[in-house]
Amino acid sequence: IRCYTKNHGSHYRNDYRDRGIKTSISDAEDSDHTKTLMQICADRYYIASGQLNIDSFQRGTSCGYGPMGLELRKNILEQWWKSVIGSRAEVFGISTLHTSKGSNTNIDGHWRVVDAGNMSQLLTQKDLSKDQLIQKLQTLFEKGSSVRTSLLQGALEQYVPSLELVNRKLPFGLAEKGLCFQPSNGSDCPEEVTLASLVWFCSPRTSSQWLDYWARHRLLWWKKFALGPSDFSCIDVVGEELREGATRGVKIVYSFPWGQEPLETLWSRGNADLLQTHKGSRSKLQCRDGRKSVVPHIVSVTGNVDRGVLAYLHNSLQQMKNADSKQRLHQRKVLKLHPILAPVKVALDMGRGPTQELRQVCEGLLKELLEGGISAWPGYFETMPTSMEQLNRKYDEMGVMFTVVISDSTLESGLLQVRSRDTTIKETMHISEVQNFVSRYITAAENI
Amino acid sequence: IRCYTKNHGSHYRNDYRDRGIKTSISDAEDSDHTKTLMQICADRYYIASGQLNIDSFQRGTSCGYGPMGLELRKNILEQWWKSVIGSRAEVFGISTLHTSKGSNTNIDGHWRVVDAGNMSQLLTQKDLSKDQLIQKLQTLFEKGSSVRTSLLQGALEQYVPSLELVNRKLPFGLAEKGLCFQPSNGSDCPEEVTLASLVWFCSPRTSSQWLDYWARHRLLWWKKFALGPSDFSCIDVVGEELREGATRGVKIVYSFPWGQEPLETLWSRGNADLLQTHKGSRSKLQCRDGRKSVVPHIVSVTGNVDRGVLAYLHNSLQQMKNADSKQRLHQRKVLKLHPILAPVKVALDMGRGPTQELRQVCEGLLKELLEGGISAWPGYFETMPTSMEQLNRKYDEMGVMFTVVISDSTLESGLLQVRSRDTTIKETMHISEVQNFVSRYITAAENI
Repeated sequence: IRCYTKNHGSHYRNDYRDRGIKTSISDAEDSDHTKTLMQICADRYYIASGQLNIDSFQRGTSCGYGPMGLELRKNILEQWWKSVIGSRAEVFGISTLHTSKGSNTNIDGHWRVVDAGNMSQLLTQKDLSKDQLIQKLQTLFEKGSSVRTSLLQGALEQYVPSLELVNRKLPFGLAEKGLCFQPSNGSDCPEEVTLASLVWFCSPRTSSQWLDYWARHRLLWWKKFALGPSDFSCIDVVGEELREGATRGVKIVYSFPWGQEPLETLWSRGNADLLQTHKGSRSKLQCRDGRKSVVPHIVSVTGNVDRGVLAYLHNSLQQMKNADSKQRLHQRKVLKLHPILAPVKVALDMGRGPTQELRQVCEGLLKELLEGGISAWPGYFETMPTSMEQLNRKYDEMGVMFTVVISDSTLESGLLQVRSRDTTIKETMHISEVQNFVSRYITAAENI
Repeated sequence: IRCYTKNHGSHYRNDYRDRGIKTSISDAEDSDHTKTLMQICADRYYIASGQLNIDSFQRGTSCGYGPMGLELRKNILEQWWKSVIGSRAEVFGISTLHTSKGSNTNIDGHWRVVDAGNMSQLLTQKDLSKDQLIQKLQTLFEKGSSVRTSLLQGALEQYVPSLELVNRKLPFGLAEKGLCFQPSNGSDCPEEVTLASLVWFCSPRTSSQWLDYWARHRLLWWKKFALGPSDFSCIDVVGEELREGATRGVKIVYSFPWGQEPLETLWSRGNADLLQTHKGSRSKLQCRDGRKSVVPHIVSVTGNVDRGVLAYLHNSLQQMKNADSKQRLHQRKVLKLHPILAPVKVALDMGRGPTQELRQVCEGLLKELLEGGISAWPGYFETMPTSMEQLNRKYDEMGVMFTVVISDSTLESGLLQVRSRDTTIKETMHISEVQNFVSRYITAAENI
């Protein structure tokens, strides 16, 4: 059974090229789109159960992820890393601590980790005067660690030891990814966010060109995996938003229905941060720029990977009206995540036939796929009778690239059915061909 | 020039099989081994500069990593994940938050994140009485988040929503990896540690067998990447060490010179934790075990990846006496990390010839290797004249698998020299063959 596919307005196109300028989208459609997306995130294992919160979802902070969301975020992070570390030999990865005992309270000291036991012991100590209590609390606080709010400081501290890696030659960069804690609106708890950062050290005379270089590099990267690339754009930071010390700023933003939100922020920051971190010792900081010695300027690039997850999810949800074999209209909802990003490449299911034998075949194929680095979903765990239409609906919403159905005839001839998410076409192939077929498809998508 | 290689006692063997029982190692040799290792970690970009601390190193807590250490930890984590998630279809990955606002203070509430601004504002408020101050501080504290000390609680909370994934059928598991904060001896600051966790839900009657299954599974995994597998072993937890509620415990330990330290800990924990997390609602928790309904028992598996980094580094450092071409004796130090774990597979260097042209060839090959997923090191950044012996010493200490030297003759004929860390043999091959050669070598090592 082939369904005919009708586009929902001209909002989405059936491929990975641009879907054009949104002119005909009403607010109601936008709101419906967001609501549908949130339902899918909850039902299809993207967001951990009980953690679906429209506010934090919109703010782009981290939440608990289910198996699908975890894999999507991992894929985005891996691609970010690969594109930044792999694009230039001069970029090195580092990993710094999440907490620091230093006294850099101005830069990074908004939140502190305090021993709850010590604290409550102090508060219940009867014989302390108020002043004594305050003094002891201050000491406890000062000894506590502060948690990082960005990845900049770690890179600045690793600047001097990294000079050996590059033979004191500019430009070069230090990249890091990981958890940071950010202030939340009106709450006493910090919000968690997964950041990916590049701190790029370059000669003062080229810093503005490098900002442009990296802004273009990052925008192209975000667009590469988008179903609708035009929702990703680049804006210059102007006026009051410009940070102290930064001469220029650029944001890569995604156009959500509720407004443009930054996915990645780039600053040209001069060398003040670097001098401050290393207490102004210029001689230690100097690098070669051609024949001159200079204290480098910094271009910082910071991506919010949690918001990136949301942007790609929002961007890839496609809703289309379908008619089934009996001419009943259905709304088809598909998460058309890019093949590289899709959390599950292949779902394995059982058709008709002897359960025990089919299950064994499924398990064998699953193991083979996993060992080949292809993420696969054990749909055969579900043993309740499900119609193929229900199954396809589920996998479309999960964004599963291919659905494989193993049945009676697989046991006889080794043949099985493979359905594609993007074309809805079913192909018959031999079980030994599946892994190669999927690998080739993903590799091809990577090179488009 | 070929060097003859003499083993240092019978301590190490020149391959990835066992190096036998250590009988002839004196304390002095052990201490020398550790000192050498720490020097290498600092000099060769494993540990971030300024963060080398023998105590925390020995305790197996996290520290800042340099580019090499970062990559080693990443490789270990990836292999851990692959072996646990990929080994059975019933294991699903999740990602939970690092902080929680809940009131589970008994389980996970040792450290709290507090807003430094609010705190210091309270402490400087003149008009508060001591009691008022205490009350306000308590409120501030209760509203604050607690940071997680393990990954168990997150998995317990995601148990119920995960039942749908497995159709309420036992056994199944939830895996997670990430940062946790642990108490440190005699310090007011928590220590950071990267844990990898599997929480395995199984029927009460099989929990003891599953503990054995996973203990064996994990031990074999640790040994798989070891140069000296006999330093990795398995011990039963007995007596007082047995946790409250746990009926059995097993530790995978590594024999450091200062004693055995646990790399991975397995507990058979019953179902008390699960019942407590879900407030005793048995009906919600029940799963199918054949035809019966049961509240599952838990086997928890927790790996300390930071200590794993240290164990593999310690295990793979090989010291041998070498004679050079002029019959001078040298101590050869090699980090013989398993090919899968080695942070850098190929280093690229320039020999004699026109610098500009050679550099271009190096850059091209580096890019090709990185795109092929082979981590490569831009040794050609170092333009100071270095002898091949110095270069080999450096790369041996870094644990670089292959050193490629591009020279005059590469420009003429495309031929270059490839030196192997493990055999010290140099081969001449065509530049177009390098990527394939290295890939094949790594794949072969994976399948041993």
